[in-house]
Amino acid sequence: MPTQRYKMIVSYRGTAYHGWQFQVAARTWKGPLPPAGQGIPTVQQALKRAVTIVLRHPITLVGSSRTDAGVHAKGQVVHFDTHLTQVPPEGMRRAINHQLPDDIIIRDIEPVPDSFDAIASTSRKRYQYFIWNSEDRPVFFADLAWHRWQPLNIDAMKRAAQVLVGEHDFASFARPGHGRDNTIRIVHECSVSWRAPKLVIGVEGGGFLWQMVRIIVGTLVQVGLGTYDADRVRQMLQAKDRRAAGPTAPPHGLYLQWVQTQCKNEPERSTLDV
Amino acid sequence: MPTQRYKMIVSYRGTAYHGWQFQVAARTWKGPLPPAGQGIPTVQQALKRAVTIVLRHPITLVGSSRTDAGVHAKGQVVHFDTHLTQVPPEGMRRAINHQLPDDIIIRDIEPVPDSFDAIASTSRKRYQYFIWNSEDRPVFFADLAWHRWQPLNIDAMKRAAQVLVGEHDFASFARPGHGRDNTIRIVHECSVSWRAPKLVIGVEGGGFLWQMVRIIVGTLVQVGLGTYDADRVRQMLQAKDRRAAGPTAPPHGLYLQWVQTQCKNEPERSTLDV
Repeated sequence: MPTQRYKMIVSYRGTAYHGWQFQVAARTWKGPLPPAGQGIPTVQQALKRAVTIVLRHPITLVGSSRTDAGVHAKGQVVHFDTHLTQVPPEGMRRAINHQLPDDIIIRDIEPVPDSFDAIASTSRKRYQYFIWNSEDRPVFFADLAWHRWQPLNIDAMKRAAQVLVGEHDFASFARPGHGRDNTIRIVHECSVSWRAPKLVIGVEGGGFLWQMVRIIVGTLVQVGLGTYDADRVRQMLQAKDRRAAGPTAPPHGLYLQWVQTQCKNEPERSTLDV
Repeated sequence: MPTQRYKMIVSYRGTAYHGWQFQVAARTWKGPLPPAGQGIPTVQQALKRAVTIVLRHPITLVGSSRTDAGVHAKGQVVHFDTHLTQVPPEGMRRAINHQLPDDIIIRDIEPVPDSFDAIASTSRKRYQYFIWNSEDRPVFFADLAWHRWQPLNIDAMKRAAQVLVGEHDFASFARPGHGRDNTIRIVHECSVSWRAPKLVIGVEGGGFLWQMVRIIVGTLVQVGLGTYDADRVRQMLQAKDRRAAGPTAPPHGLYLQWVQTQCKNEPERSTLDV
């Protein structure tokens, strides 16, 4: 039966979910699985339920980024296949959104070639981390930003952020158990922007290690407090040891902002067809 | 024992609370009380608990506005008395904030004369109502704004809002059972401002009837949808009947923005002292 692949752009508030998909402490864990979050659903489960109600057949959802529990997404990219090839995307989008809870929404849905893959076709991602930098805590946004009441040296944070830009071995900025052999990654941008009381750290890169953005943020906040300077952050990169870097910032300030995907062209075949 | 009265300015996210204080459907209700919200606390209870921990003696908290369940406050005014007259206000503020949950905070605390009363000294209040006017629902702010996806005629809403400004009998804009004999109130300002996707309705007045702002908002949204026009709103005022006005907007878009208080001067006595 012929199938059609669809790409979705999805936003969600991660507060009520056990992440995009349930994961044990280490991705390489070989033992028995712990109970799946005492009934707390994953975003993938909630989305799959809604898509299945509309399409009326079982589907598999592949997400570009396995966001952790409590982490939010403005533009997660997801793909799935259906043999219902005649559904207009906009009608499908509305119907699925109607079935979704208040904290998940599909922004866009479009047909893509079978060669598209939400993981393999990802060429770049951007994360944002929101810090509420004010003595008073954010009563309206407690689950949406990390509260740091201490004054932070923004210029020092900007200087240290620049040290991380480029191709580096980010082994010191990865939670142990990430299961990746290669810890070299490219960071295209690491920005620190401040408009009181909101401090936003933006990190753009080709790919990220487990909790890499949260460890970068936790480290930059320590720079802002005067614990480390830019030189120390350079030494952290060289150490290639998680213990060399700063603490991990909590998940609730982190947003997957967007995912850039490139559909690999069909090989020679399509060229020959022209 | 001499006591000192303190005035506090308090912000809270109303989502998790049964309002400022528990109230039955009608304020004039004479029957047995229903169970107090199945254990859901009120903001007053949560605040009282924190103040009591710090001051170590029982207190009574009087709030300027009895906000309903789900309604938020940026600047609720509250007073209480303590016989601990030597506590520096800033230290007290920090200590109480430390005991409060994440969704309540004291912005300011200051000693006031005994003649100050959070209810009787209130001369003016301003409410804001947030509407998320976009096809996509507000996944990050589901409990903080009312989602209305339909296009709204902002100019028509502004014209209708002007009809409500001034001294009027607002009987049509009060939930029955409010228990007030006099339903004449002054509205100083009723503004409609739009910056996509956020629509904010601001209502400033000397005093408000029960759910008055939410009924004004529900009515103005119907104006925006084309159901009523400014003339019809004028007729609603004249009808002096709740059934004449539009539906009540939900509580989660409403914020008590600020309360202006005037401390009534002590009478002749203080003048004679000079």
